[in-house]
Amino acid sequence: MANSTALPLVLLAEQFAKLPGIGMKTAQRLAYYVMTMSDEDAHAFADAVVNAHDTVKTCSVCQNFTENDLCPICSDDRRDSSVICVVESPKDINAFERTNEYNGVYHVLHGLISPLDGITPDKIRIKELLARIAKGNVSEVIMATNPTVEGDATAMYIAKLLHPMDVKVTRLAFGIPIGGTLEFADEVTLYKALENRNEL
Amino acid sequence: MANSTALPLVLLAEQFAKLPGIGMKTAQRLAYYVMTMSDEDAHAFADAVVNAHDTVKTCSVCQNFTENDLCPICSDDRRDSSVICVVESPKDINAFERTNEYNGVYHVLHGLISPLDGITPDKIRIKELLARIAKGNVSEVIMATNPTVEGDATAMYIAKLLHPMDVKVTRLAFGIPIGGTLEFADEVTLYKALENRNEL
Repeated sequence: MANSTALPLVLLAEQFAKLPGIGMKTAQRLAYYVMTMSDEDAHAFADAVVNAHDTVKTCSVCQNFTENDLCPICSDDRRDSSVICVVESPKDINAFERTNEYNGVYHVLHGLISPLDGITPDKIRIKELLARIAKGNVSEVIMATNPTVEGDATAMYIAKLLHPMDVKVTRLAFGIPIGGTLEFADEVTLYKALENRNEL
Repeated sequence: MANSTALPLVLLAEQFAKLPGIGMKTAQRLAYYVMTMSDEDAHAFADAVVNAHDTVKTCSVCQNFTENDLCPICSDDRRDSSVICVVESPKDINAFERTNEYNGVYHVLHGLISPLDGITPDKIRIKELLARIAKGNVSEVIMATNPTVEGDATAMYIAKLLHPMDVKVTRLAFGIPIGGTLEFADEVTLYKALENRNEL
């Protein structure tokens, strides 16, 4: 912003511009919008940022975001903990939960292997998945990463690691449009993809 | 978000979704992004929101956002305070300042007259503009609202109020693409629009 703008507003716009998908023009617009918010709303917004960041941690079992040691899914006795659906990020869990068809549990990798971006296998939560499976009682691992280069590579990498272990490894069926992302798949497509999963 | 998500994250996504142009999907993505920020960055973001909202007020003369009683433009002796450029919002000032061709001062309306949205003339800062002009020493008022229905209507309304007063009222030339907004006009187009302004 030009120097005709108050410094705290410039700094706020710079903060907004750090968020993914927010360019400098949008960041300025959001900063100006904050000025029109009520005192209560502006403070509630800031508090929500700090509160989410400071109180939310990852589930000690599945690595999903949770306020407690165990997430609601891992602590639910009715879920079948012998089937683990491996996803890239927590938002993918929401997509599966919306199908109301999956009763297993999850494992969140928090990323995909992408050597060009410096994301090597040790940077995502693969060792936590191996530790879960090493404890036994897991019959199937469903690789539910996106059908992209990185998603496929990560699925293949993990499948290879799991081959020596006594566990069935499957991959989501490609009912999902190739090149798209899980997040935007509709419930029926996701359910079909679960139903037609293939052994790797 | 589904109830598999930690509550503070749901609340944060709801806060993001209140911002203009941010839908629920984007809000979720931003909330998840906050989780990946460092402690320092997350707190800096929240502090920037509160700091901008709480310390920035409007200039007692031109109504632009500022940290002090007078904004840098109104307190600059080198600016010609006899020419007032009337704009809808503070971001329009940045657009004019980028041309480096305007040496007058500004007046920010903080909105446009739009009866259908409940924005009547008393809801925007027209009376502050009239008070400035009533003090004398103003030779020209340039109506620089966007070339939209509301922008034109507001310009005409203010021009009518100013007719009895001894002041020249001009309108930006329509070098600006009709239907577009000032914010996205390039410097040359804006300069041409200033140069070819017409008396109302």
